[in-house]
Amino acid sequence: MTTSSGSRPARRQLHLNAFLWGVGQHEAAWRHPLTTESDVLNVAHYQNLGRIAERGKLDSLFFADALQVDSRIKHNSLFLLDPVTLLSAIAVATERIGLIGTASTTYSDPYTVARRFATLDHISGGRAGWNIVTGHQLEEAANFGLDAPPLHSERYARGAEFVDVALELWDSWEDDALRLDVESGLFADPDKIHTIDHEGEHFRIRGPLSSPRSLQGHPLLVQAGSSEAGKDFAARYAEAVFTAQYTLEQGQEFYRDLKARVVKAGRSADDLKVLPGFYPFIGDTEEEARALEQSFNDLKSTEFALKQLSVIVGVDLGEDSLDSPLPPLPSVEDFDGQKSRLQLVKDLAGDGKHTVREVLELLSGGRGHRTFVGTAEQVADEIELWFTEGAADGFNIMPPYLPGGLETFVDRVVPILQQRGLFRTDYTSTTLRGNYGLSEPVNRHVAIPSEATA
Amino acid sequence: MTTSSGSRPARRQLHLNAFLWGVGQHEAAWRHPLTTESDVLNVAHYQNLGRIAERGKLDSLFFADALQVDSRIKHNSLFLLDPVTLLSAIAVATERIGLIGTASTTYSDPYTVARRFATLDHISGGRAGWNIVTGHQLEEAANFGLDAPPLHSERYARGAEFVDVALELWDSWEDDALRLDVESGLFADPDKIHTIDHEGEHFRIRGPLSSPRSLQGHPLLVQAGSSEAGKDFAARYAEAVFTAQYTLEQGQEFYRDLKARVVKAGRSADDLKVLPGFYPFIGDTEEEARALEQSFNDLKSTEFALKQLSVIVGVDLGEDSLDSPLPPLPSVEDFDGQKSRLQLVKDLAGDGKHTVREVLELLSGGRGHRTFVGTAEQVADEIELWFTEGAADGFNIMPPYLPGGLETFVDRVVPILQQRGLFRTDYTSTTLRGNYGLSEPVNRHVAIPSEATA
Repeated sequence: MTTSSGSRPARRQLHLNAFLWGVGQHEAAWRHPLTTESDVLNVAHYQNLGRIAERGKLDSLFFADALQVDSRIKHNSLFLLDPVTLLSAIAVATERIGLIGTASTTYSDPYTVARRFATLDHISGGRAGWNIVTGHQLEEAANFGLDAPPLHSERYARGAEFVDVALELWDSWEDDALRLDVESGLFADPDKIHTIDHEGEHFRIRGPLSSPRSLQGHPLLVQAGSSEAGKDFAARYAEAVFTAQYTLEQGQEFYRDLKARVVKAGRSADDLKVLPGFYPFIGDTEEEARALEQSFNDLKSTEFALKQLSVIVGVDLGEDSLDSPLPPLPSVEDFDGQKSRLQLVKDLAGDGKHTVREVLELLSGGRGHRTFVGTAEQVADEIELWFTEGAADGFNIMPPYLPGGLETFVDRVVPILQQRGLFRTDYTSTTLRGNYGLSEPVNRHVAIPSEATA
Repeated sequence: MTTSSGSRPARRQLHLNAFLWGVGQHEAAWRHPLTTESDVLNVAHYQNLGRIAERGKLDSLFFADALQVDSRIKHNSLFLLDPVTLLSAIAVATERIGLIGTASTTYSDPYTVARRFATLDHISGGRAGWNIVTGHQLEEAANFGLDAPPLHSERYARGAEFVDVALELWDSWEDDALRLDVESGLFADPDKIHTIDHEGEHFRIRGPLSSPRSLQGHPLLVQAGSSEAGKDFAARYAEAVFTAQYTLEQGQEFYRDLKARVVKAGRSADDLKVLPGFYPFIGDTEEEARALEQSFNDLKSTEFALKQLSVIVGVDLGEDSLDSPLPPLPSVEDFDGQKSRLQLVKDLAGDGKHTVREVLELLSGGRGHRTFVGTAEQVADEIELWFTEGAADGFNIMPPYLPGGLETFVDRVVPILQQRGLFRTDYTSTTLRGNYGLSEPVNRHVAIPSEATA
């Protein structure tokens, strides 16, 4: 795997995902005149976002999730709607855009999750993706009978078995098992529908799944964990990875590391697309972009930002801590939250030289993702730089406000990327997997034709 | 509660639900020229059914579910798609029709189920309904780590606690908790969002739910169990009950019994609507209707019918049993499957006088529901008879083939019912609860204004 642009094939192109959140990723987006606050629960708003992303030929859109509500709700939208249910409503309002939703392997079961995503895959004609999370948020556990989330390592062990089972269930119908043979009355061929008879440490599941195989084989597997365990998990299973990298150098290091792990896991480096988060404020001029960002930041709540940072670092930070140095943070090894985000804060400001207020400024609205303020041309330059310098296969675009921030990206940045030959001018496939340049998975029950004859 | 028509208020009207299943309830519907077999996985087909039901001003449509696939799949569609995910796609293609989906209390957890139905309720503007099942199907257990389903009584105990928790979660946001106050920056009022701190025999859940309260308060609660435990469960929780009653007398007895239990549970008899299944073949003449039914029955598979009956009675019936008398059936008390369906077969044919082949004919395509073959006028007469003679508050219409069987009902039977003043000519509410004539539930956290002052 080389990382210089010259040695790459000419046709390598970006993959772009839109990471959607209520009326925007900026914590005060809902208060800004450029948004409509009631859109947070408006399905027509979300369908409109799907159409805008599709107009820009983006690969996919994505909804994160958490199975909790905490006191941050005072200041901003958390996760008010179930992703798969919402994505189904977007599926029928669009034709090509991929539809990725989060589901936790800690607080759900493989049969139900496999079937829901299979259903979304059928409804969308092969455009479903599953963002696999293990549930690091503290408050979720209490909604599922636990005092605290399972340990980080335990979550990943269960997660791996969970995905193994889901893959088996999605293979349980061979591609041509659904026969619909009106003449003979054969609805489905039982010889091509298989039990899985899984007996593992966490799950005992017979199968088969009660959904036929989908147009793209099975939903795209997406992952976002960037801890050591998270990267190994991604190397084994993920086909796209959402990650938070703040500088080009960090991005390159993560990219090299993860691609090496993918190869070590026996896969081709291209089988996994690395998509760093990218949080852009775009203006006609740099000044205009900065003024736009400022107009959002003026609406921010310090209380919310403190709560958000407290969740990331696992330390309770009150208003009285604002002008004190950031207190010592837990060690990443012993941390049972999202290790990679803690590491990011440590890298950025863990040296005790910054006050809490300064750390909040450094993190800004992007929560540790690459933030960028500038013109459409400058955004395109930055994207090209990361793409050609081995830090990204594409980006997880995080519009600060919606729909406007997504429209600006689609209508002003995408055409520049297209002119430079860096991004598709039209979809090349009807499936999410096809647009990500991934091959359709071969069903484990399909015998590879052998030359031996009986 | 009187049951003669004369004493009822003039304005009492029917409630009609469309019970949809693939391309029709008839087991061979997919083989018939009046259907398109590939529609079983076609979301546009299901959206079209929603629009047809809405054209007929029906209260709701409904998808059953089972978390398994068994050998019956050789001959007919079982449950290939997740109901809530599918209903979301129908929600955005319709405006008024209610959307009811099945979810099991045995193989899922309250937080996830409450949130998914709340999401559907938001997406549809208050049109979601949950058909609560406890999971009697034998093969489901093996997909969730169990050797067999929990005992009937244990399933109902868990189911009751499950619904209690779901109701608490749906109350966890007061009606006006979501503030969206742009000026002050108050997104939601934490004082109006409550933990539930439930600690019960089956569940320990803190809450609150991560979805605000919906337009109709919470989703409609629907139930179909007709065993003793099922009827008590319905009396306590259900707002609509789907039931299978074969004769007017059986219907009347069930109606009287269930309404008495509702009153005994401290609710008004009108708080629960009884909707027997109704499986109609409709023709311009009786002869035409009979010929239509025959054209479907000619496509039936004896193997499928035997498997279906085996599931209902919990006895494995093979092809060689066809011309033997129906063997002794298990006692209803000891039966851990769906007790009411077993009872129905016993009532119909449990005396040993019928051969298995004859029992299959008696049950026909309606699987024990009221089947009716005749003209639209005769269908309307039968519906009116049951409605006015105290056997039904409306019906669960089971079209044998789709979309044609639903279109015929909507375009030919509904106008007759409307002319007789038995059915609405337009929707009277935007919510499912409103159209069923039910009041919006009062949130337990809302203090009833008292006359005492401080």
